[in-house]
Amino acid sequence: MKTFRLTLAYDGTAYAGWQVQPDVATVQGVLEHAAERLNGEPSPVLGAGRTDAGVHARGQVARFGTGRDLTAAQVPRALNAFLPEDIVVHRADEVGADFHPIRDARRKHYRYTLRVAACDDPFDRRFVLRVAPPVNVAAMRRAAACLTGRHDFSAFEKAGSPRESTVRTLHRLDLIHEGDYIHMDLVANGFLYGMARNLAGTLLRVGQNRLDPEAIPDRLDRREIAGPSLPAHGLCLMRVVYDDMERRTE
Amino acid sequence: MKTFRLTLAYDGTAYAGWQVQPDVATVQGVLEHAAERLNGEPSPVLGAGRTDAGVHARGQVARFGTGRDLTAAQVPRALNAFLPEDIVVHRADEVGADFHPIRDARRKHYRYTLRVAACDDPFDRRFVLRVAPPVNVAAMRRAAACLTGRHDFSAFEKAGSPRESTVRTLHRLDLIHEGDYIHMDLVANGFLYGMARNLAGTLLRVGQNRLDPEAIPDRLDRREIAGPSLPAHGLCLMRVVYDDMERRTE
Repeated sequence: MKTFRLTLAYDGTAYAGWQVQPDVATVQGVLEHAAERLNGEPSPVLGAGRTDAGVHARGQVARFGTGRDLTAAQVPRALNAFLPEDIVVHRADEVGADFHPIRDARRKHYRYTLRVAACDDPFDRRFVLRVAPPVNVAAMRRAAACLTGRHDFSAFEKAGSPRESTVRTLHRLDLIHEGDYIHMDLVANGFLYGMARNLAGTLLRVGQNRLDPEAIPDRLDRREIAGPSLPAHGLCLMRVVYDDMERRTE
Repeated sequence: MKTFRLTLAYDGTAYAGWQVQPDVATVQGVLEHAAERLNGEPSPVLGAGRTDAGVHARGQVARFGTGRDLTAAQVPRALNAFLPEDIVVHRADEVGADFHPIRDARRKHYRYTLRVAACDDPFDRRFVLRVAPPVNVAAMRRAAACLTGRHDFSAFEKAGSPRESTVRTLHRLDLIHEGDYIHMDLVANGFLYGMARNLAGTLLRVGQNRLDPEAIPDRLDRREIAGPSLPAHGLCLMRVVYDDMERRTE
């Protein structure tokens, strides 16, 4: 029995999120079905992050075990043969049997992308949120600077999601402005439920001059929800980092 | 009665091409339906290029007439209100009643995009053709240099498409290599039926070392079809140029 850490990308448009649920298509469900066809027996696949319905991934991580004698180079091809074209395994690394994709994850990187334009674009409508101009990126950067660091992020958590602790460290909240696009890159040691889309919504509200960036530290302290959650389709899980990965600049 | 030159973008995935046909969804058909709803009467919309099933556009041009008192700035919003999200009118210019989008077009710009990679990418699979590495871009550039200029392009025409003349001037055939992507930019005073995808297929065959670029001039002279036609989904109509448009570098 070998254990692999899979890295996979998916267009989340057609799926009710990552996690298996009865009667709806989910990414985990489709992946477990492919794993079962490859292994010839039921094969649970555990993911690093339970992305919501409609959220995309370029670097989701999942644990896959197989009794077949496959090398790490063969695993992506073998699984992709049983996967639809909107889910692609692009890498596999052999890991120890005790590898746990959630517990062992050190950092996650999410990206929320806005397109600032008067008209929709038929080519990226499934992957970005289009907002009308103007958007004040400088103000968004000021707000972002208040949000990075170690904080109790319960103000940004979706209600009714009990956790041991609501303290997380937001290592980075970078705004990358390229042409009509604004990428909000969030890197943290963990995300509360709804936190990425809620932070993105708070920054957008600042960018639309509907929230003063100076108000952010106080809201964070008082654990008041600062901004609306943005739609799922603008969000993408870019990368999950583990101890054995080199420390790339991110 | 006012006449407008519309500039529109569409994701061609769901359509049986531009031109109206019975019993299938076409871009022209959907646009004429929107125009009819806006005008309150049947409203033919004539396009500059009859893109094939699955081909996309970022800069298709079409003629739209209306008896309603709309400004050029109002037309896109008014039409987009009746259009599905995979077709977007992003510009309208008022033109004379004698404007003819096909006859008056001076140049057209098509782009065919390859992605050179071992795995598919779920995000651009509808818009690029993925090919396995390696691809020899230098050899493709040598072939492209043989193809530009004024030639009889009947070797690159899909069979059974009678024309007065098969001579066209290919102003540009540029290869833009960005990361995993190779864009083939074709600018001509007109394209024969199938010519863009056939030229792209010829260049790809050269890039895969299955055709010697030195053989191109002879094949062109002997009017032999040099390469296979590539699939529709990698092709996009980028721009149609008219006399009144500033001569941008292209």
